[in-house]
Amino acid sequence: MSTAFRSCFVLGGFVLAYITYLILGALVFSAIERPVEDNLKSNLTSLKAEFLNLSCINATALEDFLERVLKANKYGVSVLENASLRTNWDLASSLFFANTMVTTVGYGHTTPLSDAGKAFSIVYALIGVPFTMLVLTACVQRLMHPLTYGPISVCQQRAGLNPRAASVVHFIVLMVLVVLGFFVIPALVFSAIEESWSFLDAFYFCFISLCTIGLGDFVPAEKPGQRLRALYKISVMGKRLESPRVSFQRPFG
Amino acid sequence: MSTAFRSCFVLGGFVLAYITYLILGALVFSAIERPVEDNLKSNLTSLKAEFLNLSCINATALEDFLERVLKANKYGVSVLENASLRTNWDLASSLFFANTMVTTVGYGHTTPLSDAGKAFSIVYALIGVPFTMLVLTACVQRLMHPLTYGPISVCQQRAGLNPRAASVVHFIVLMVLVVLGFFVIPALVFSAIEESWSFLDAFYFCFISLCTIGLGDFVPAEKPGQRLRALYKISVMGKRLESPRVSFQRPFG
Repeated sequence: MSTAFRSCFVLGGFVLAYITYLILGALVFSAIERPVEDNLKSNLTSLKAEFLNLSCINATALEDFLERVLKANKYGVSVLENASLRTNWDLASSLFFANTMVTTVGYGHTTPLSDAGKAFSIVYALIGVPFTMLVLTACVQRLMHPLTYGPISVCQQRAGLNPRAASVVHFIVLMVLVVLGFFVIPALVFSAIEESWSFLDAFYFCFISLCTIGLGDFVPAEKPGQRLRALYKISVMGKRLESPRVSFQRPFG
Repeated sequence: MSTAFRSCFVLGGFVLAYITYLILGALVFSAIERPVEDNLKSNLTSLKAEFLNLSCINATALEDFLERVLKANKYGVSVLENASLRTNWDLASSLFFANTMVTTVGYGHTTPLSDAGKAFSIVYALIGVPFTMLVLTACVQRLMHPLTYGPISVCQQRAGLNPRAASVVHFIVLMVLVVLGFFVIPALVFSAIEESWSFLDAFYFCFISLCTIGLGDFVPAEKPGQRLRALYKISVMGKRLESPRVSFQRPFG
């Protein structure tokens, strides 16, 4: 077996193990959190019905109601009618959550409700964060030649540039491609799909996600009734794994 | 001037420039976002008063009211009475926000409301994230000797251990100190200060913060009426900068 083939085989194994880790994590998160979410949802529905049935709504009753609504909302459980059918812990959403944990993005639009979920999050990230860095570093190492040394040597041989000029040209082209591929084009796509997002909102979302800041004020595929929501959610995960910051990190420095 | 003194002088300059960068960022965020927050707050107050004055509260009116309340809440502006005096954009809170941006923690309990705030966030993080890594790497380089080579050589000389055994002992002691100093002791402190946090909640908060995931389900100094809130908020910033993950990263890998 040639060295190149063996190296690809090892990388393939790594990626497969990583996908399995994400799916297993998603299944565990879903199993732990979905019943707790269902319980909180039914409590919220009763609370809303009780509130609507009140003969007299005073400031204290409203304050108490809003306090409970906002507390549930903090964990991603919305009191709104059009969000009632949506769950944060189906397989696609749990995969998305598991992915935000291991890439350290952590939007926080959904968070574990139970103690078991919190404890599992700690263990999952403890293994998942270095694992993600390992897989991404392995991928970047394979991409190093075709993306850097290869094009630089082409610039030197074909255009007759000296090494310094070839590096500068390569750097500029790569920067333009990164800005277009990671920010401008995805921002155009998101602003087209997400009705309420402007181009700046979408660009800001791409930047905040790819820097792994993940504020969570803009999260795709969260609007009720979006077509092919699960597929869309998983595609966004793929985009996040391209993060230049995560990809070029070495595992633990 | 000796090399060690010059090195300390340069590091001091770096740290000072970094603190200045955080303060400047906080002042700009505060200047941009505070008027927008005030506006949203007064809108929310009117909305709540109008809602309470409705003669008949039906499901549609409640749904519409809740939708607007939850939208404001997403940006960290709460409709609750006891949160009305608190601002997310005073100097301490803005410093905290600027710090969560540059360390990539991004809790997202507060997010920029205006387009100017979003654009500034992008530029601020673009410079701030590598700057943070540079400062932390410089600090870690200075700590390398007293924290690793120094104790290992002490183990070898005083306890007569061979290099391998000395490294193992040093690793175990360092791990215990890291777990105690970064997780267990801070978790005990947080669970004592934050009334509604259990020890698991506080430990989970420390872990999620130090991994820079920053889900934002637990954020200290957010309860209205906490004593010395500004000072407490700034102390938490200091703790976050100790993040082992951030500290041991090299700037851009």
